[in-house]
Amino acid sequence: MTEAELKPARRSIGATRNPASQEAILAAAEAVLLENGLAGFSIEAVARRARAGKPTIYRWWPSQAALLLDVYHSHKRINFIFPDRGNIRDDLRAYLTGILKTWRDGTSGEVFRCVVARAQEEPAALAALSAYMADRRCQSGKIVEKAQERGEVRPDVKAELVTEILSSFAWGRLLTERLDVSEAEVEAVVDTVIGGILTKPAA
Amino acid sequence: MTEAELKPARRSIGATRNPASQEAILAAAEAVLLENGLAGFSIEAVARRARAGKPTIYRWWPSQAALLLDVYHSHKRINFIFPDRGNIRDDLRAYLTGILKTWRDGTSGEVFRCVVARAQEEPAALAALSAYMADRRCQSGKIVEKAQERGEVRPDVKAELVTEILSSFAWGRLLTERLDVSEAEVEAVVDTVIGGILTKPAA
Repeated sequence: MTEAELKPARRSIGATRNPASQEAILAAAEAVLLENGLAGFSIEAVARRARAGKPTIYRWWPSQAALLLDVYHSHKRINFIFPDRGNIRDDLRAYLTGILKTWRDGTSGEVFRCVVARAQEEPAALAALSAYMADRRCQSGKIVEKAQERGEVRPDVKAELVTEILSSFAWGRLLTERLDVSEAEVEAVVDTVIGGILTKPAA
Repeated sequence: MTEAELKPARRSIGATRNPASQEAILAAAEAVLLENGLAGFSIEAVARRARAGKPTIYRWWPSQAALLLDVYHSHKRINFIFPDRGNIRDDLRAYLTGILKTWRDGTSGEVFRCVVARAQEEPAALAALSAYMADRRCQSGKIVEKAQERGEVRPDVKAELVTEILSSFAWGRLLTERLDVSEAEVEAVVDTVIGGILTKPAA
């Protein structure tokens, strides 16, 4: 193996993403989005800021939506957790708190709002968002499945539906700029889903 | 009082909205939105289509968002119900079914998606949407308040939070084009909120 194969040139623009340029483009995309808003976001503006060619960007990200989602992903790994604390109440509280905190702190909430907005206008954005959400539902549903294995949650409960209810609540708050949810409010939402709202528990 | 005061001229463009032109403008706004998408929506295009002046439109609707929300309102009255069937399970099922059906049938879902998307880009749109949602929460919360008065639902439950959980679920489905929710799925969501998910009811 030659040294060139071991250390590919930094500026190569092949089908394989070059991590250095990739990071530069993601950083540029985020900066353009936050400075110009979604209305002023374009691959052209990103290319100019990253000093990259538009074809390079399009080779790596087939749509604006794919690029926006990658900007989003590059942030959220820190706080988006699928907790496993051994009981469903703590797990779901940590799950909902994690989403809200991720969106409230820093810029990832702003980016995700733009992804959702763009998905209402562009089929490619909707497809990218839908694929991402399907994966998320599958992942987060495991929180409930584990509780079912422990015998905590009824076996007839649809696991993915439970975490979808909680993440949809967070979406609603993000999209109406009401992310400042108190701990008590998180507990009230989770307790509703876990224990219901009836005076007497259903038979 | 003069006759002129009793019967204002049909074509007056005063501060008072003229119902005939108002309808024409709302119809034009909807047509422009559905034909051009949100990206091609503008007051100019609406004015052209309605054969109205831009100043007239701006006098009645201070922002695109206000106009879009009025287009939305002009449809949804038929199905957006705050049911009162005497028990919380039927009421919440009817509430959630009503939202999903309203958005699925006809064009109002398409219009509302645009309102939500625009709210992520324009402060005026967000303000209009937020005011609308605050009003909706207050209205829909009464479903749960009545159940609390009947002794069905615990008094410590926050009424508005319960219907917000359900309407947020519907938002999530609308914004990811997954509105085709089966009756069984509606029941599963409502039953989760009403009865919880635990094997044994919480003490």
